[in-house]
Amino acid sequence: MIRAPKDIWLIGIGTGSLSHITLEGVAALRDAALILVPRKGAGKDDLAEVRHQIIAASETRAKVVHFDYPERDPALPYQERVALWHDEIANRWAAALDTAQVEGPVALLVWGDPSLYDSTLRIAARLTPEPNVRVIPGITAIQALTAAHAIPLNTVNGAVHVTTGRRLRTHGLPQGDTTVVMLDGECTFKDLPPDGLHIWWGAYLGTRNQILIHGLLDEVCDEIIQTRSDARAQYGWIMDSYLLRRTSR
Amino acid sequence: MIRAPKDIWLIGIGTGSLSHITLEGVAALRDAALILVPRKGAGKDDLAEVRHQIIAASETRAKVVHFDYPERDPALPYQERVALWHDEIANRWAAALDTAQVEGPVALLVWGDPSLYDSTLRIAARLTPEPNVRVIPGITAIQALTAAHAIPLNTVNGAVHVTTGRRLRTHGLPQGDTTVVMLDGECTFKDLPPDGLHIWWGAYLGTRNQILIHGLLDEVCDEIIQTRSDARAQYGWIMDSYLLRRTSR
Ligand SMILES: C[S@@+](CC[C@H](N)C(=O)[O-])C[C@H]1O[C@@H](n2cnc3c(N)ncnc32)[C@H](O)[C@@H]1O
Ligand SMILES: C[S@@+](CC[C@H](N)C(=O)[O-])C[C@H]1O[C@@H](n2cnc3c(N)ncnc32)[C@H](O)[C@@H]1O
Repeated sequence: MIRAPKDIWLIGIGTGSLSHITLEGVAALRDAALILVPRKGAGKDDLAEVRHQIIAASETRAKVVHFDYPERDPALPYQERVALWHDEIANRWAAALDTAQVEGPVALLVWGDPSLYDSTLRIAARLTPEPNVRVIPGITAIQALTAAHAIPLNTVNGAVHVTTGRRLRTHGLPQGDTTVVMLDGECTFKDLPPDGLHIWWGAYLGTRNQILIHGLLDEVCDEIIQTRSDARAQYGWIMDSYLLRRTSR
Repeated sequence: MIRAPKDIWLIGIGTGSLSHITLEGVAALRDAALILVPRKGAGKDDLAEVRHQIIAASETRAKVVHFDYPERDPALPYQERVALWHDEIANRWAAALDTAQVEGPVALLVWGDPSLYDSTLRIAARLTPEPNVRVIPGITAIQALTAAHAIPLNTVNGAVHVTTGRRLRTHGLPQGDTTVVMLDGECTFKDLPPDGLHIWWGAYLGTRNQILIHGLLDEVCDEIIQTRSDARAQYGWIMDSYLLRRTSR
């Protein structure tokens, strides 16, 4: 039986800029005894590179220990596949920590903010005995998007809906002025009734390759699809998010 | 005619912790020529104090210039009152900048993130000629809330609804698993049908006075109301936010 660490710190690092990290995040990296880093983010070497640069810049003396992400079993239904994958990641963390034999707080660098469409909190909860989890907030893709476009997230006193590409396909566009869509590999905006819909789209937000497009959905829809597919071919990966606003009201 | 500055930087400073600010935020404070600071946040001296500590810690050599917030006219209807108030703030910025006579980028410290329920972007757009606005994202109250409770914002593949106390009263609880409520001075959660609703509440998030309560809404509702009213009496002000989750599904 592998013993879990007493303290796990999940450090939000923002979405690609080295300077998205907070002072609290830098201090936590410095105070950690060990930093657990995935060897590779599913072919996304650029993301691994950002992590290493942030660790180097923090001048931490923590021991850096790597683990490999397991494969997901495509034969399983979605929820079960994800649950098993989380179990297996927790096992790999525990094994890596066991080999490292370091006492003290263990830090993980989490893309964006640990609360938003991220599984690290759920994986940490699988360790036994359950560790003390400290969460250090980080800049999300939503904030990187609105900052890059210099727009407010909400209309005055308006509500904001945050959703995924998958849900947008199954549930349609939610009511309300403002919807933010993440995790959309299929440009689901192209299937929405475009009447009066304005889109602010951003890819590689916070990085030097950041791309921004905005306008009326029916005017910029094709341009976004083309730009996205070209960029993805060029860099080998893409992360993009967008905000939709009903402009008629 | 007062000339507006060419560059305005809106720097998100997080929600009360001095270490919420990002490295990008610190660098921007350092590179600014002038920092525009409200003399007082509506009786909230503690908030003014946080701003001054952040400026001091950044070791900036920028000139710090103060302005006073105008009064809001309670006789006007909501939208009009807010619009006029924004006009008047823009005038006061311009007047303060005119007196200071400093060339170079002007920085403002914005509570949380400049995109979220904040008027600074709308005020900056009122300056003529319209300046280049650069937005530096900051940790929001939403992230401070989920981090303090160490909980995910969304359920797996779930959507998130962000709204205000005012809207919650007029529109009721939105569909979906997760709702975050901000700007609620009236504990509107007490009027919701509590069946299976779980609440995570936090006040003074990120500060040394942070208070957290969570549980089934009907079990902790009274405790939150009492705690909130005691804390408000003790400190003279309060800022609180909460997350509601349907636990039955
Ligand atoms: C697994 S989620 C992680 C979100 C992250 N925890 C956050 O707080 O932003 C990945 C999704 O976040 C968004 N995303 C993350 N980084 C991004 C970036 N640099 N540019 C645009 N979108 C990004 C994309 O929608 C992507 O599909
Ligand atoms: C005018 S809005 C500003 C929001 C800010 N721009 C942000 O990004 O969090 C003020 C509301 O934010 C929330 N808030 C801000 N600071 C907070 C804190 N330290 N603790 C709890 N809630 C906070 C409260 O709901 C408050 O009514």
